[in-house]
Amino acid sequence: MDIARSPLARPFPALPPIAGVTLRVARAQYKTWDRCDLTLAELAEGTAVAGVFTKSACASSEVELGRQNIAQGRARALVVNAGNSNAFTGWRGREAVEAIMAQVSGALGCPQEEVFVSSTGVIGVPLPIDKARAGIAAALAAAPCGWEDATHAIGTTDTFPKAAGASAMVGGTRVELAGIIKGSGMIAPDMATMLGYIFTDADVAPAFLQAALERANAATFSCITVDGDTSTSDTVMVFATAKAGNARIDSWDSPGADAFAAALADVCRNLAQAVVRDGEGAQKFITIRVSGAVSDASARAVGLAIANSPLVKTAIAGEDANWGRVVMAVGKAGEPADRDKLSIAFGGVWTARDGLPVDGYDEAPVAAHLKGEDIDIAVDLGLGEGRATVWTCDLTHGYIAINADYRS
Amino acid sequence: MDIARSPLARPFPALPPIAGVTLRVARAQYKTWDRCDLTLAELAEGTAVAGVFTKSACASSEVELGRQNIAQGRARALVVNAGNSNAFTGWRGREAVEAIMAQVSGALGCPQEEVFVSSTGVIGVPLPIDKARAGIAAALAAAPCGWEDATHAIGTTDTFPKAAGASAMVGGTRVELAGIIKGSGMIAPDMATMLGYIFTDADVAPAFLQAALERANAATFSCITVDGDTSTSDTVMVFATAKAGNARIDSWDSPGADAFAAALADVCRNLAQAVVRDGEGAQKFITIRVSGAVSDASARAVGLAIANSPLVKTAIAGEDANWGRVVMAVGKAGEPADRDKLSIAFGGVWTARDGLPVDGYDEAPVAAHLKGEDIDIAVDLGLGEGRATVWTCDLTHGYIAINADYRS
Repeated sequence: MDIARSPLARPFPALPPIAGVTLRVARAQYKTWDRCDLTLAELAEGTAVAGVFTKSACASSEVELGRQNIAQGRARALVVNAGNSNAFTGWRGREAVEAIMAQVSGALGCPQEEVFVSSTGVIGVPLPIDKARAGIAAALAAAPCGWEDATHAIGTTDTFPKAAGASAMVGGTRVELAGIIKGSGMIAPDMATMLGYIFTDADVAPAFLQAALERANAATFSCITVDGDTSTSDTVMVFATAKAGNARIDSWDSPGADAFAAALADVCRNLAQAVVRDGEGAQKFITIRVSGAVSDASARAVGLAIANSPLVKTAIAGEDANWGRVVMAVGKAGEPADRDKLSIAFGGVWTARDGLPVDGYDEAPVAAHLKGEDIDIAVDLGLGEGRATVWTCDLTHGYIAINADYRS
Repeated sequence: MDIARSPLARPFPALPPIAGVTLRVARAQYKTWDRCDLTLAELAEGTAVAGVFTKSACASSEVELGRQNIAQGRARALVVNAGNSNAFTGWRGREAVEAIMAQVSGALGCPQEEVFVSSTGVIGVPLPIDKARAGIAAALAAAPCGWEDATHAIGTTDTFPKAAGASAMVGGTRVELAGIIKGSGMIAPDMATMLGYIFTDADVAPAFLQAALERANAATFSCITVDGDTSTSDTVMVFATAKAGNARIDSWDSPGADAFAAALADVCRNLAQAVVRDGEGAQKFITIRVSGAVSDASARAVGLAIANSPLVKTAIAGEDANWGRVVMAVGKAGEPADRDKLSIAFGGVWTARDGLPVDGYDEAPVAAHLKGEDIDIAVDLGLGEGRATVWTCDLTHGYIAINADYRS
């Protein structure tokens, strides 16, 4: 099945090179396809690393080893395999990851735990070690490539390449950030995986990098959903090469720490939104703003309950300002809510206020808003100061077609 | 839109009359339709009542008052309104419910809190008190009717009437149970609601009736899902008229307590499964058996994570034994699981064992099973003795058509 480019796709952004990062791609032929499917990012000595990983109890060996090795804080290489997720492959899967780490660490002369590996694609088939070996050898011998080639090489069922950049002033020094990501959903028998990598030339201590990534993640990647399903391989990592020459950021008190963290969050938000824009079958990009919750965490839970509701998502697909389904989703979220304090708006027009439909609200702007591509739903719980914004897409026949009609 | 009768529908069962229960229906005309939409069940003096209600934080006034009045343990009447859920209607909705309770309690000469009311249908529109009053007057004057007429009258978007019966020996006395239910999903702008009522001539103390219902509910209504969405009005009640003449059941030690509880659970399970069989767009009835969990509750959570996964449900719709998606759903359930101990079977054939695909398993019986109407998925977590069974249906174009394409 040929999946058409998402109607919500955005053009590939202009991204600067990041000093200390060398990208190369190669054909490992994990599937019988005519494209690069192995990406090798070589990182300068002294590169700091941070990462967040899937909470799945059935995570792949790549994720297990990544979680473990992130603790030492340094990275010299990243390898991404596309076409085979190596998930649910037991000890044979782990052997393949360790073989890749050994080969790359040998070639670069670095400790094995400084080589990070991700894989995405079919599950239940151990990653073929011979193909990985040949692919890595080819990549090591290849000419460096740019961001767009690397983004294509990490993709699987993505309908467009997704990337984002930002810069920040740290003290008097300008630092650059460039991020790439893959993920859209799943096509049988492949497994959805969101893999995101952000590279920066800033000099950042690993512990601070981890703290900044976790903070950014909480408000971005953790606030998107396509279908509420979670991959066994989801990974977001950030690599800081320290080539910009800024005074090292090692705490929130360091000069430029907030600026760097804001730029990192900006890249994360753009990457996260790009994944939603490539959501399977997506026709509309939905922003759900929750306010008045008892806490930010509660607001996020309510937002995700709305964003994951098939009934809300199909209503938006049907261009129906069905606030009753939003009420239902708020009610089932398991968070503090008071029916008689709840207010709901579509496109800035309040259709329900304080637990009652707004009599005679102007339906014309609401209907016009629902016909657009970017849908805004605001929910005020009227209880406290907690707020959160989450992003999702609508649920359409395209989702069913991609996930039920297509057979491997 | 005309919704076709579910292909999974079952014929209406033969149900005995229940002594002490008089059913009547009437046309309140809550919508402009040509059908009865108000049901009045008159219950003999001394009828015990128990109930379980939605956990929604945005529950309707009907649910709020029902939760409150169930505590006194007696019921003389049940009124069910179809076509208007009276949810999200604030104080005006509450006034309507109290008006119904006052009118019926006046007519029957019983305390107001012994009149229970449910409503299902459009939300955000206060139930019109004049229509309710006229409908109740008409019902009080109408000739009694049978189970099938009452089942039709409580239905909204149901594509077939759903009921179940059972009998049990309590001491030397045979007692009868008859249950009716409505629910299938939602059609804009209506809100899905599952309303179930079970009537028995057994003599049962209210506290024991509540305990037996809660136990049955945990293994039946709480183990089904169509789309993971929860109505603001879900209600299951049981009424025991004490007309059978059995020695009263007031604890698990009473003669026949287990037999009665088993019959009640049987009716609940059949009603719950009927709702799944009428799930919006359902083409397949899916049974998910989870074993080897650390506890029964953990097994149920894992089962519901699988049953609510759009990717699992679309895979079944596509007749694809996609065990990778089951692994994914187990991983995201947030319950203890060990990837390398996980085993998965479709139709009794293990496709993955102890964290690895089963090499060369016989695909023919699996493919044949997936083509059938009743799909069986077994998951063994290999950790403990916890087990649970949950039921759901597949996710098809029909679900999208019903919920996105149809506009009010």
